[in-house]
Formats: sequence, C-alpha cells, structure tokens
Amino acid sequence: MVTKPELDHIFNPKSVAIAGVSSKETTLPSQGQRFLQTLLDYGFKGKIYPLNPKGGEILGLKMYPNVKDVPEPVDYVISCIPALAAPQLIKDCAAKGVKVVHLFTSGFSEAGTEEGKQLENELCSLARQSGMRILGPNSAGIYCPKAGLTTRTDFAKESGSVALIAQSGGNYTYTVREGARRGVMFSKAVSYGNAADINETELLEYLAADPDTRVILAYIEGVKNGKLFVQVLREAAKIKPVVVLKGGITESGARAAASHTGVLAGSERVWDNLLRQAGAIRVFSLEELIDMAVTFSYMPLPRGRKTSILGVGGGATVLATDDCTGAGLIVPRLSERIRERIGRLLKEESGTILGNPMDLSLEAWDAGFYQVLSILAEYDAVDLTMVHIPLGLAPYQSSVQHKLWDFLLEEVVKAHRELAKPVILVLHLPSFGEDYEWILNAQRICYEAGIAVYHSIGNAARAVDRFLSYHERKLAGIRG
Amino acid sequence: MVTKPELDHIFNPKSVAIAGVSSKETTLPSQGQRFLQTLLDYGFKGKIYPLNPKGGEILGLKMYPNVKDVPEPVDYVISCIPALAAPQLIKDCAAKGVKVVHLFTSGFSEAGTEEGKQLENELCSLARQSGMRILGPNSAGIYCPKAGLTTRTDFAKESGSVALIAQSGGNYTYTVREGARRGVMFSKAVSYGNAADINETELLEYLAADPDTRVILAYIEGVKNGKLFVQVLREAAKIKPVVVLKGGITESGARAAASHTGVLAGSERVWDNLLRQAGAIRVFSLEELIDMAVTFSYMPLPRGRKTSILGVGGGATVLATDDCTGAGLIVPRLSERIRERIGRLLKEESGTILGNPMDLSLEAWDAGFYQVLSILAEYDAVDLTMVHIPLGLAPYQSSVQHKLWDFLLEEVVKAHRELAKPVILVLHLPSFGEDYEWILNAQRICYEAGIAVYHSIGNAARAVDRFLSYHERKLAGIRG
Repeated sequence: MVTKPELDHIFNPKSVAIAGVSSKETTLPSQGQRFLQTLLDYGFKGKIYPLNPKGGEILGLKMYPNVKDVPEPVDYVISCIPALAAPQLIKDCAAKGVKVVHLFTSGFSEAGTEEGKQLENELCSLARQSGMRILGPNSAGIYCPKAGLTTRTDFAKESGSVALIAQSGGNYTYTVREGARRGVMFSKAVSYGNAADINETELLEYLAADPDTRVILAYIEGVKNGKLFVQVLREAAKIKPVVVLKGGITESGARAAASHTGVLAGSERVWDNLLRQAGAIRVFSLEELIDMAVTFSYMPLPRGRKTSILGVGGGATVLATDDCTGAGLIVPRLSERIRERIGRLLKEESGTILGNPMDLSLEAWDAGFYQVLSILAEYDAVDLTMVHIPLGLAPYQSSVQHKLWDFLLEEVVKAHRELAKPVILVLHLPSFGEDYEWILNAQRICYEAGIAVYHSIGNAARAVDRFLSYHERKLAGIRG
Repeated sequence: MVTKPELDHIFNPKSVAIAGVSSKETTLPSQGQRFLQTLLDYGFKGKIYPLNPKGGEILGLKMYPNVKDVPEPVDYVISCIPALAAPQLIKDCAAKGVKVVHLFTSGFSEAGTEEGKQLENELCSLARQSGMRILGPNSAGIYCPKAGLTTRTDFAKESGSVALIAQSGGNYTYTVREGARRGVMFSKAVSYGNAADINETELLEYLAADPDTRVILAYIEGVKNGKLFVQVLREAAKIKPVVVLKGGITESGARAAASHTGVLAGSERVWDNLLRQAGAIRVFSLEELIDMAVTFSYMPLPRGRKTSILGVGGGATVLATDDCTGAGLIVPRLSERIRERIGRLLKEESGTILGNPMDLSLEAWDAGFYQVLSILAEYDAVDLTMVHIPLGLAPYQSSVQHKLWDFLLEEVVKAHRELAKPVILVLHLPSFGEDYEWILNAQRICYEAGIAVYHSIGNAARAVDRFLSYHERKLAGIRG
C-alpha cells in the first residue's frame, strides 16, 4: 500500500514570498515581476511578499530586503535569484520557518559542471537540516487552482480531477493550457525540474493517494532511484490511471535530457519494459498525453474495439479506416439489414459510401444524421462510433460550411445525450484560420456536453485502444 | 522511355459546357450551378455553356437544352446529371465532337452493383468509338491554373511545378488548398475518381513527360493493371520525384476503397514492395504528401542527415531530439570549441541547453540568434539546422510573444538568405486561435523567402530523411 507523503502544504500555501523581484521597469518584465503579477492577477488568496535587497515598493506591495524581515509567517518562497546566491536564501528561509522553496533558477546539476552539482547538493542538505522542502531547481512551479496558486494568469480557474507532474516547465505549461482548451481541468500540476529534493516518485505516491485526483499524467526525463520509482508506479497504477510520456528515449535525446534536467535518461528498451510491467499507459507525444486525459475525463467505456466511422469525404474516410485499423481498432462490415435501414434515411442523389466506414455527403447529413447514429447504437456489432470532420476538405465556403457543421455538431451532441453507445468526435485537417476558430469553439461545446474530441484519427484511435487496454488489464488483475 | 500520352487538351480546353445546371434558386447551390459560378469567378478564359433541357438563362449566360445545340465547338463537358442519364449525354457529346467528358456524377462501379459496373463500361465503349475521353465517374475534376480551369474558386491563381493526381475528390481539394497555404503551387491537379477511362497510369506517364511538372504527388486507392502501373511508375520515378499515398492498405480500408472508387486495393505488403522497387517515395498521410511537395519545392539538398536542433523550451527540445532521431536523422554532439563560441553570444543569465539540441531562452534569441546560425553554418559536423517554435509553450502573452517570434523569424530568413547551409522551420503545438493565425502568416513569409516550413518535428524529420534517401538512390543509380 501507498502511504501518502506529506506534501499537502506545498500545494496549499497561506503566504508566498518572491525572492528576486527587481523594481526596474524593463521592456519585458523580469521573472520575479512576472510571478508577482501572475499571483495578483490570478487572485491568490493568501499574503504575497515581494523581496528585494533594497526594499521599496512594487504594485502597491511593500518589498522586504530579506525573507526574515517579513513580519508574518511565510509558507512558500519562489526564488528567481542567481544560482550562487541560493544557499544564503535557503539558510534565511530555514531560519524563517518556510515550508517549501521553489527554485525557478537554473544553473545547477543540469549545467553539467561539478560546481553546479555541488551547489545543488548543498541546497538540499541545508534544507534537510530544517525539514524544509525544495522544488526544483529549474522548476516552473506549481498550479493548484483550488488554492489560487498558479504560474500563469491564463491557466484555468476551475479545478478538475487530472494531475500532472512534468520535469519540463514548457511541457507543463503547454499541457495545462492546451488541456483546458480541450476540457481537461486539473487538481494539481507540478513542474519539478531537476528533482533535487521533491521528485517524481514522491509526487506520484502523493497523487496516488490524493482524493482530488482521478488520473495522473507524467512527463519524465529520468529518475534517480529506478527501483523505488517502479515500485511506487506499480502501486499508483493499481489505484488510478498513470499516463507517462518519457522524454530522452534516444541516445541524443538522453544527452539533451541530461543537459536539461541533469538526469540519466535510461534506454528505450529499459523504459518500455518498466512502464509496461508497472501497468502505466505509455504515450509518445504531448498531444497523446492530453488525449488520454480527455479520454479518461469524457469517454464512456465502450464494450470493445468495434468502431463505426462516419465522416465527410470518401478519401478521408478510406484513410481514417486505415488509421483506425492500424491503431488496433476493428472496423467491422455492417449487415445488409443495417445498411438498408440507414440507406432509407438518405436522399437518393447523395453519392455516399454506406458501409462502414460511411461517407455521408453533406446533403445527406441533415437528412437524418441523428437517426443514423441511433440505428448504429442499437446494433450489436458496433461498440462505438467515431464521427470525423476533415475541415480542410470542405466543399463549400467557410461561412456556409460552418453552418452545416454546426448542425452536424448538434446532432452528435443529441446522440451523445440520448443514445447508450459512445460517440467520439475527430476535428481534423484545418486549413483556414476560421477552421481553427471553429474547432476551438466546437470542442468547447463538445466537452461541455461530455463528448471526447480529438485532432487526428490516429490519435483518437490510439487513445481508445489504450483506454480499453487499461480496463482490460484492470479486469484481468481482478479476475486473476 | 516514356512516351507522352495525348492529354494536353484535357488540361487546356478552349470551351466548357456544364450539363445539369438547374435554374432553380435553392439554399445551397446545385453542383452544376457551383461549377458554373466557380469558372466565372475564377476567370476561365474560354467559352462557358450551361446546359438545361428547358433552356433559359442563368448568370447572364444562355442555357442550351443539349450540347449539340451549342453553335460553337465544345472541348470539355462537366456532367452533373444522374448516372442513368449519362449514356445519352455521352452519345450527344460524341456527336458534337467533344474531347473529354468529366463525370462528376457517382453511382457507377463504386456502388458495388452489377448495373453500376455495366453502366460504366457502356459509357467507356460509347466514348471509345469516337475517340472521346472520360474523366471519372466520381471525379471532382481538373485544376490547371495556366488554363484558368478549376473546380474551386479558392484554388490559387498562380501556377507552380507540382502535379497531383488523386483518386479522391476531397483529398484532391485538401491537397491543392492546403498546399497553396504552404507555398506549394501546382502545374496541374486531377481528381480521377473511378478511373473508368483516364487512369492513374496514363496520367503518371503524361506528367512524367510534362515540362511544367517537376514533382508528382499521387493519392491512389487501387489500380486495375498493376503490371503496367509499376512499369510506368518506375520510368516516371527515374525522371522526377513521385510521392505516393496509398489509401486502403488495411483490410477494412480496402473495403472502404472499393465502396469509394470501385477498386481492388491490394495488400499492404504488395504495395510496400511495389512502391519501393519502383523508386517512388511512400508517405502515410495527406500532411506527409504535402510535406514532400514543400521539401522538393523549397529545401536545398543537405550534404547529409546531421541536424542541429534549435528551439524554445527544454522539454520540447528533448522530445524534438527523440522525434528526429526516431525518423532517421542524426543529432550530433557539438564540439567544445563551437559550444564555447556560441556560449559567448548569450547573456549569462539565460538558462539554456547549449549543446545539440539547443534550447535558447527568448532573452538569448534576440541577443544573437543569426550569429548562432552562422557559427553552425561554418561547422562541418552539421549538415542542416532545424529551428522549431512550439507556440503553445509560450511563456509570454500572445501579443508580446508574437513580436519576439517575428524577430526570430527575421533572423531565420536572414540566415537562409546569407548562409550556405539549409535551415528549416517547424511551427508546432499551436494552442490559441492567434497562434494559428501567426503560423499561417509566418509560413507565408517563409515560403516567399524560400524556406521549408513544417507543422511537426516528426513530419519535418521524415520529410528530410525521404528527401535525402531519394537523392541517395538517384546517385546510386547513376553510379551503378
């Protein structure tokens, strides 16, 4: 069994101090100024204390020369000061009784120098003496919407049930932001950088036991204690889905990872075995990482892999079938009876492929697309339906076309609400700026209605396959 | 040697008649009305004759009851009439001396019925008697900007040197339109549908000898005479690059292809061997098809696969390295001397990965990004540089961010103009609507400057790998 590490406090600070807030006005705000502005704009509910050796004032807040000068308790310190000044800050924080220091600053073990490594070790041993924790170095920070804690103003205010741990700050930012655009809301997200103290294993252990978290996403470049990591990962994966994107799987990629976060990345074969045996869900891109969060957040569990594919465009539909089959789904032939029933709903003139896949011309869609889905929902040989809209193949001009697709979207939403079988939507191949805007809006409508949306047929099919495999493994485990 | 089939006239008609132009005003224009409006709007220079059994007038043009009633010669007829009425039209066209009939109409062999097949055969034998040619059935038509012939108003007016033959109308439309957005201009493009008469083999033979065409793209679902096809493909691939996307490679996909264009699709293994042995460049998606056109249109030939990767975001750069290496490129370590030279250009504070890959923080970029590229251009251990901008990882707000990236783009354009080594650009992971708009604009700036732009690291790396493999094969062929 997993015992929950005591990390609640790092996600729920009552007060935050920011070290290294310059008072200068520059074209681009300094990193310290940005953290300060972000917490203010996002609406952090606790106290905020900017620190600057010269004191003064910024954005209506008093600046303290040292954390020890702050008259009230400080839970959480964000450090944007140069690496060499960090040991003194850590000593001051320990003296003040700070609970966690988030080191945004880089220039430690990832620099590849002996000095960098020693400096990082020094910080850790200084912190350890007082029981204070360190996040980073080289960490973008923590996002916990419930506590009003964030590293970006444009992160969602709304809490959700997906957690993210990411060794890269950029990948953390992308995943949280793009996730929100696809309806994935987060309980907590952490950019953990060099993992000098708080590392992926402890975070995983914590999140496995976290009642606010139902799904865990992880971007990992390397781990220091492989044996312990596997053990914790295995336990975590028994409790909730753990989706892992491993960066640095090739030799050059591993060298890049070493320069990025100072880790030993390990070989592809080792990681592939490790993740599979631990029961994690492995993905190969940031999009796939988010796809899995979308799937676990929105997709009802289909009974199996038998998929009916409906879309616009004969050629697109042929390629969609290849992509689905290639990713492990089954695209079964429809019975003559079903084909006839569907055929009766369509106008005579429409030149459509009426089997599975089905290419319904636009004129046919509005003749009764919901009815097509309802016939398929009754049909035992189909477990789920994938509807795809290849935007760049549109025969009409955007203004006309988007109205037709709005209607199609309504029919899909209706089918999702009223029918018992899963429907997923793929919005792909945008070509115009308006197409992209339409996609952003359509996916919002869909996730609000509870429908999983993807951006390529292959990605959607792989997500469904991984989702089913996860549940098959769970079932086998229970039965075994 | 390839002898050029006599198909020039199908691309360069002096007059077009459209059969099946209804005079009714409906919410959505009928297909015949759309072809008419498109030719008028695009500016077709020849005569246009709408046909309608009842005569009358439309958009200021006289409608003729029958093609035979047109007082002047008619080269090209577009048919939007129902399948069953087609034989009479073909007879009338033959009597009139029409050179080619483009059958937009479906409902022939692809319907899978004996009647459909017979009807298709009947049309062909009727046409053959008079030497008239048939395009389709089930064809979206022909695009030849030089002749002002098009099937969409929004296809580019500008001619280029890429030709496309596509068995699917939707895939043809997408490729032409999205191609133009990426700087790929076409000499000719044909949607050839069921290939009852004019087929992929004849078109390939024609395009191989076409002086306006430097690169051939093909989307093929199946061929009828495999032996002849391979022979022609082999000859064509000796003359110019032939890029092939094969639809219907899985069993279900092949069933879909049969319903779509009535073809026998053949197995994956057969096609893989066939395409490799014939010297074609095989791709697996429409994006990859366009990627190859971009590559052949814009990329100077690098000396080899040794790639330096420069981008924003440590994690993104680690993943970029994995993707490049996985796709067959080499990401070599930089020498200590080069790293030092580059390091001297950067501000002290920037937390960057200075090896290869290189993660340059934004503050570092504007300190001397062009100089970084110029150092790499002198360096023998690097054959090309890939610069990537992961838009959704942006640390700043869009307005600030896009200005920083505009500057980066200028530096890349300057490097491309002034340095001897290929630079390619990857614009990926857009998250906001503004990101997508920025990408569309940036890729226009780039292709106007002659720079190849891609939308994912993997796609870019695969394109470079295929481009180099093509030239290696050519060289081996010449040497052998």
